[in-house]
Amino acid sequence: MQLGLVGLGKMGGNMAERVRRAGHEVIGYDRSPGARDVDSLQGLVDALEAPRVVWVMVPSGDPTRSTVRELGELLSPGDVVVDGGNSKFTDDKVHADELAEKGIGYVDAGVSGGVWGLQNGYALMVGGTAEDVAKVQPVFDALKPPAPHDEQGNEMPGVGFVHAGPVGAGHFAKMVHNGIEYAMMQAYGEGYELLAAVDLVEDVPGVIASWTQGTVIRSWLLDLLVKALQEDPGLDKITGYAEDSGEGRWTVEQAIEHAVPMPAISASLFARFASRQDDSPTMKAVAALRNQFGGHSVQS
Amino acid sequence: MQLGLVGLGKMGGNMAERVRRAGHEVIGYDRSPGARDVDSLQGLVDALEAPRVVWVMVPSGDPTRSTVRELGELLSPGDVVVDGGNSKFTDDKVHADELAEKGIGYVDAGVSGGVWGLQNGYALMVGGTAEDVAKVQPVFDALKPPAPHDEQGNEMPGVGFVHAGPVGAGHFAKMVHNGIEYAMMQAYGEGYELLAAVDLVEDVPGVIASWTQGTVIRSWLLDLLVKALQEDPGLDKITGYAEDSGEGRWTVEQAIEHAVPMPAISASLFARFASRQDDSPTMKAVAALRNQFGGHSVQS
Amino acid sequence: MQLGLVGLGKMGGNMAERVRRAGHEVIGYDRSPGARDVDSLQGLVDALEAPRVVWVMVPSGDPTRSTVRELGELLSPGDVVVDGGNSKFTDDKVHADELAEKGIGYVDAGVSGGVWGLQNGYALMVGGTAEDVAKVQPVFDALKPPAPHDEQGNEMPGVGFVHAGPVGAGHFAKMVHNGIEYAMMQAYGEGYELLAAVDLVEDVPGVIASWTQGTVIRSWLLDLLVKALQEDPGLDKITGYAEDSGEGRWTVEQAIEHAVPMPAISASLFARFASRQDDSPTMKAVAALRNQFGGHSVQS
Amino acid sequence: MQLGLVGLGKMGGNMAERVRRAGHEVIGYDRSPGARDVDSLQGLVDALEAPRVVWVMVPSGDPTRSTVRELGELLSPGDVVVDGGNSKFTDDKVHADELAEKGIGYVDAGVSGGVWGLQNGYALMVGGTAEDVAKVQPVFDALKPPAPHDEQGNEMPGVGFVHAGPVGAGHFAKMVHNGIEYAMMQAYGEGYELLAAVDLVEDVPGVIASWTQGTVIRSWLLDLLVKALQEDPGLDKITGYAEDSGEGRWTVEQAIEHAVPMPAISASLFARFASRQDDSPTMKAVAALRNQFGGHSVQS
Repeated sequence: MQLGLVGLGKMGGNMAERVRRAGHEVIGYDRSPGARDVDSLQGLVDALEAPRVVWVMVPSGDPTRSTVRELGELLSPGDVVVDGGNSKFTDDKVHADELAEKGIGYVDAGVSGGVWGLQNGYALMVGGTAEDVAKVQPVFDALKPPAPHDEQGNEMPGVGFVHAGPVGAGHFAKMVHNGIEYAMMQAYGEGYELLAAVDLVEDVPGVIASWTQGTVIRSWLLDLLVKALQEDPGLDKITGYAEDSGEGRWTVEQAIEHAVPMPAISASLFARFASRQDDSPTMKAVAALRNQFGGHSVQS
Repeated sequence: MQLGLVGLGKMGGNMAERVRRAGHEVIGYDRSPGARDVDSLQGLVDALEAPRVVWVMVPSGDPTRSTVRELGELLSPGDVVVDGGNSKFTDDKVHADELAEKGIGYVDAGVSGGVWGLQNGYALMVGGTAEDVAKVQPVFDALKPPAPHDEQGNEMPGVGFVHAGPVGAGHFAKMVHNGIEYAMMQAYGEGYELLAAVDLVEDVPGVIASWTQGTVIRSWLLDLLVKALQEDPGLDKITGYAEDSGEGRWTVEQAIEHAVPMPAISASLFARFASRQDDSPTMKAVAALRNQFGGHSVQS
Repeated sequence: MQLGLVGLGKMGGNMAERVRRAGHEVIGYDRSPGARDVDSLQGLVDALEAPRVVWVMVPSGDPTRSTVRELGELLSPGDVVVDGGNSKFTDDKVHADELAEKGIGYVDAGVSGGVWGLQNGYALMVGGTAEDVAKVQPVFDALKPPAPHDEQGNEMPGVGFVHAGPVGAGHFAKMVHNGIEYAMMQAYGEGYELLAAVDLVEDVPGVIASWTQGTVIRSWLLDLLVKALQEDPGLDKITGYAEDSGEGRWTVEQAIEHAVPMPAISASLFARFASRQDDSPTMKAVAALRNQFGGHSVQS
Repeated sequence: MQLGLVGLGKMGGNMAERVRRAGHEVIGYDRSPGARDVDSLQGLVDALEAPRVVWVMVPSGDPTRSTVRELGELLSPGDVVVDGGNSKFTDDKVHADELAEKGIGYVDAGVSGGVWGLQNGYALMVGGTAEDVAKVQPVFDALKPPAPHDEQGNEMPGVGFVHAGPVGAGHFAKMVHNGIEYAMMQAYGEGYELLAAVDLVEDVPGVIASWTQGTVIRSWLLDLLVKALQEDPGLDKITGYAEDSGEGRWTVEQAIEHAVPMPAISASLFARFASRQDDSPTMKAVAALRNQFGGHSVQS
């Protein structure tokens, strides 16, 4: 099939490549010249035969919103827009309603895979109507990881792709994925820190490498930690500073809205916030209190 | 009555003064000359008439242990040793057993009050046998805050003093007091930080001062925070660095031993640990992982 | 001065009484007959001389929104509406803008004091323009706690009332107050649970009562805990079930929005969520995992 | 080589089988008849040629301590005892010192693998002197997972086995592994709960299955969660009740001792404690406080 792809950055470019390798035609557009096949959204729409599928892979927030809006002006009834970026799930309903007024379908797709996706495939969590999802399915099949086989040689279903529910469900599922990711990284981080804190353990990278097979905690993230420690055994070249890209915050916000206790994921989010502070106003207040009541010496 | 007091530092000196003001005789000993009345433990014991009460007010750990041990050599059956320091409650049983072999009693007393105790009185949580506690009671009565009166003018019982249980119960109660203290300070600190983080609130010290009467969260610690903010409205002169003196750690250890969920107090303890780190190894690992899987830029 | 008061429930009724005791005229309206002085908002507006001050003390959310909107239809330029309920601070800007179109002022007032406010006074955190706040000031002065005096007999400023900033700042400050309240209650609760978990401490209510004077953690909440334990020493008549009224959630949401680490307050919020669950889906998943990998026995 | 194995339960029995499959001779002893090859520790020692290696695989605590002590009476200088159970690392030094007096070596081995180890291999973290570890190495090689090969066909080193440091380092590393395991399980659990809490996501097991390939959070534990949800899609047959077997507690205790902030792992431990409570004393206290200050209705 034909796919129109808006956004040919690190993620979009690799995804175009993977879809092409599966035998589909990808027509790509990007604001920057370079890799693009057409030089405007109008050109992109003109180059595709109806019914069109246009996949938007640009930064979440305003860039995605304005691209979707513009596509709404250009596309025809029966076409489908896919937002594959890291949009907040609450944006999806807005996009879908806007496009529905013009008879255009909308699918939200949470995509995981990072820089490894071209090689391993991208896990896809999608939301939308069955009809809209079906129109994009060949592309989803091209992007997703190859289905593993069980011991009898049967394909194992449901791996790497899910139609999670109506519009918004895809980004919601991806959001939760990222929330879990925060806490897993924090878990490995805390374990690493304790190992590194004691003299008793003389080979910290070795311990972590030993966990990568046969243990309960083996995972792809653990493999990456082993790799990071091979490159820099004491993590001396790196600063303990971590951004957060939105999904972790939204996950905790949703937990609060739905009264779900979420102590580990929220702790991981707060640890990232703290990692970016030069000094902690909370701990300034604590130090000030200690000074007031106990005459404890204070660092100033 | 007569009281022997070992340790005339900030706490011990003030306590001696408060006991004297109540009409008792205090004979004080300290390693350093200066305020001491006698120049050795032997001299202290000689100066007291049996049955003696000797209050030990020296740093917890080895100084307390060696003082108690030495007193065990010098005192007579029927005498009582009081440990009023911040000892771990598990030390108390050891001390009591050592002294019991010589017929000497032992009482552990958790003391709260800090630099304000001379004026306001010291809250006392004690552990020991009824017989031993009774021998020290006049001193406890001198040290504790004056009993408040209810609206009918009756003394309200149980304020500022408790015989919490057998040996160890006093320090255990004081330990829990300090654990609570950690979380209260953290609570005020977190609230302060949020107020300070938003432009909307233009008078942060004013907001906190407004809370000191009529609110649900009024407290002595809050009064101290108001005072700290009066002296330094942006807490600019203070670093967000907080020591922990042991009781917070022991509180969480005991929670773990007794399977008590303790999320807020433990969070407060961990915030103190973090306040003392130049960089967080946990967050180094998190940053390294983000770099591995996403090519996220890393601060180095 | 004259005050129009909408909402004569537990809070509103007591506040009317306190304002009247200060010599002001209060004209009260409530949906239910009974205590009301007029039987409609129109009647309330008619009974007040311009410029009017109308204080809205009804449940937050739709009741407050519709009351403010209706008042906007009835009042005149120069009048002021005060929202003294537990509204989310983001509602205030909406209300203020609606009313400003008609020349009507708006003040948001966070009110603390609960059932004790009539006697002790209500702590007030207000947001709005200086001009609007000034129009309400006599009522604020009537409601707030009496100013304490320092040792020289001078009134201590800033206690029980703050003009925190522009519209919204009052409710924001009250919201943070409640977030702190959650963590303080959790702190005392965790300490209580640990004391109750060990045999060593034989008099748990006594320990807690002993803390009410002279300690670092003395507070009004602690006094209430002592009272609760006098009435029911083992808390046997009460279930560990706690609602949350919104402010705690909003506090953590704002912490997330402003990247403020808030581990203790969020832990307290999550503990409330958990207190209301019959079973924990998270722990079902954990139990299922333990069963899968270890053959650990599972309760079903 | 010959291996003496004490403890032929679920773990020990499978390990014996795996070692035998690698061509070694295993002589097993268990308190219960059934699978055992000899009917006493003396018989076991007699059946092995010196220098002997005896692997102890019995419950941690007293059973392990008494077995090690008894072996100390029976073995000869130059023999080695391996403790492969879940002992606390602080026991190892005691064991090693006891045996060293008799010239017997000691190695502690943390073993991960659970019921899957026979098939996949067991990850091994060991502590001891190089000399003692070398004597056991053939058994370690038999137990550990097969080394994976990189894309050039070279064996990847360090997977599934580490000599972590001196005596105690093996159990310490395994302890940290289990602490991380707690937080990973909690992370998946929290994500599962949020997905299950919203109507938007219509296929929760499908979402979780979709994550098993291509995502950042893929792991063996995630595979197990998929399996559990296949068997029981709503986890209706399971109760949210989780034991803890010691290592999680010790991990947090060590974090406290070494001043390592550990918010996510401790939150996971506390969630397990809470899962086992009929009612929460902390939340009883919170509910009692809410009742005192606000007249909030209380469930009794």
